Amino acid sequence: MNLLENTVASIRPIDAEWIAAAARRQLELTKPPGSLGRLEEIANRCAAIRESLNPTANHPRIVIFAADHGVCAEGVSAYPQEVTAQMVANYLRGGAGINALARAGNIELKVVDVGVLAPLPIFDGLISRRVAASTRNFCQEPAMSEAEMQAALETGIELAADAAAAGCDILGFGEMGIGNTTSASAITAALTGEPVATVVGRGTGVDDESLARKCRAVERALALHAGRLQSALGILQCVGGLEIAAMCGFCLGAAAHRVPIVIDGFIATSAAALAVRICPAVAGYLIAAHQSVEPGHARLLASMGLEPLLHLGLRLGEGTGSALAMGIVQAAIAAFTQMATFTGAGVSNR
Amino acid sequence: MNLLENTVASIRPIDAEWIAAAARRQLELTKPPGSLGRLEEIANRCAAIRESLNPTANHPRIVIFAADHGVCAEGVSAYPQEVTAQMVANYLRGGAGINALARAGNIELKVVDVGVLAPLPIFDGLISRRVAASTRNFCQEPAMSEAEMQAALETGIELAADAAAAGCDILGFGEMGIGNTTSASAITAALTGEPVATVVGRGTGVDDESLARKCRAVERALALHAGRLQSALGILQCVGGLEIAAMCGFCLGAAAHRVPIVIDGFIATSAAALAVRICPAVAGYLIAAHQSVEPGHARLLASMGLEPLLHLGLRLGEGTGSALAMGIVQAAIAAFTQMATFTGAGVSNR
Repeated sequence: MNLLENTVASIRPIDAEWIAAAARRQLELTKPPGSLGRLEEIANRCAAIRESLNPTANHPRIVIFAADHGVCAEGVSAYPQEVTAQMVANYLRGGAGINALARAGNIELKVVDVGVLAPLPIFDGLISRRVAASTRNFCQEPAMSEAEMQAALETGIELAADAAAAGCDILGFGEMGIGNTTSASAITAALTGEPVATVVGRGTGVDDESLARKCRAVERALALHAGRLQSALGILQCVGGLEIAAMCGFCLGAAAHRVPIVIDGFIATSAAALAVRICPAVAGYLIAAHQSVEPGHARLLASMGLEPLLHLGLRLGEGTGSALAMGIVQAAIAAFTQMATFTGAGVSNR
Repeated sequence: MNLLENTVASIRPIDAEWIAAAARRQLELTKPPGSLGRLEEIANRCAAIRESLNPTANHPRIVIFAADHGVCAEGVSAYPQEVTAQMVANYLRGGAGINALARAGNIELKVVDVGVLAPLPIFDGLISRRVAASTRNFCQEPAMSEAEMQAALETGIELAADAAAAGCDILGFGEMGIGNTTSASAITAALTGEPVATVVGRGTGVDDESLARKCRAVERALALHAGRLQSALGILQCVGGLEIAAMCGFCLGAAAHRVPIVIDGFIATSAAALAVRICPAVAGYLIAAHQSVEPGHARLLASMGLEPLLHLGLRLGEGTGSALAMGIVQAAIAAFTQMATFTGAGVSNR
């Protein structure tokens, strides 16, 4: 078996017995039953993931995967492609939105180049795992070769293993790649069967003309690769991205190591949805951070039975929603593990 | 003028010029315009409140106001009245939900006894500002005398002034008082004119019979005090609570000191809504933390034009929603003040 197959084979579904045990524990804590709402649900699930009534989330890490997209040749983005490399530099200098949010939340941040087009200067802290310089234009040919896809998937699996080995007990991931909402839209249409027009949005803010081009690009790609879109790996190879493959591997690896995964916006969720298609048990490890403005995002989350924690109108990516939601997950775990019981605190129950 | 009148006189509305200046600054930061959604709106408002493009939220404090309610005699709560004092002890020992959430968010917590029925043992850290031992049963007479209401309002104003003097740059508040959703429902019906049945909920989890008693208690109170419910102070005195009066004063005081106020659930919001009725400019200083399960909460927030940040199905009170939302506000401010500009980071704009 290769690394991907080994990883998938080692993923166990979360156990309903642990959820039930955590729910019983919640009833002993000094609050009316259910009064912490979704915090209780999240804490119970973390207990099941960690197989412990004392789960922790003290060592959060977010990994940003960056790569470029050949489909940019179709004029699908509001920003020039060089912005991918420029933003990677911005992350490494600490000036992006995710840097501010990660600092505010005491979250460790890692930045991985999986396939940025422009050569990046050497930066302290950049994890260089370049599989290729950008994907190819998937309106004309598969985005990746099978070997490229495999390498990118393995990169994600390995980075999840590194995080688990470093003691990370909660993980998130984000992405940067000009053009990647077009890829995420194609993945969403292929996975869910939803009409293209309902899963294509304005991304970083394209005008009506570019939006129409984006829809046509997705339609053309789906038609061109129709024979390969029945499997998750076929979808990923034909219309995915190098960073999307790496994020998909990251989800699989984190689930294999039983670490809760806080998934960010549309593109990150497209990678998570591919991971769930490859291994349905992964869904139990996923916490949906937020509901993005991108129309395809809600459909993807619904297809996995996930309810987003936050509704803040975000559409930045980079793991920003994940960073915000990690604070909520940490609070949920803090309440679950630190609250006194009715008996212990001498508080009268009903 | 007394302290209340002085405080109200010193509250200035937030300035739309500052909002506009902050919005212009947001456009320079390395993200697509508007892509941080509600974080941008919150940061812009904090800039206006603090009158600075470098607002801070480094010193958060939540004050919990506790008091008992005479209306408990009507059988409106699922928990015995002694729980108010027991939970105050729980806060001071660090075992309640708000303690766990405040620790997780590095939020300073203060606990104030404004009128708990049972005498409390001496606790390190308890701020004892007892105005009376509980309110009276507002189904039979006004909940407070005018002097009691005034004293409780002043307590809140003074605690806001203390917080501002201590350098707090973001404030929240919470409450504990068995029976206080009944008071909040009466306040909501009186302020908004909504039918009683639509603003009475299950509080800590009453059964159908107690819910019916709760509705009847509110109906009777509104009928008994009908002649006094045209002003905010009339409503507060007749059907309010000592902790609600203190929270109302706390809002007024925080607005007078130009500190953003993160309001918690239904009961906290009923106090904030009274403050806004007393001084409409207060609304600009309020950030709605979350949408509670209590049905009256959404109506109160809508009446003030406030959109809650979080939808997590909370109904615990204690300031728990406020604690969670403070992390979001801090992140919003971090992004606004720490992100690089397109020019500074050498990132191509559209």
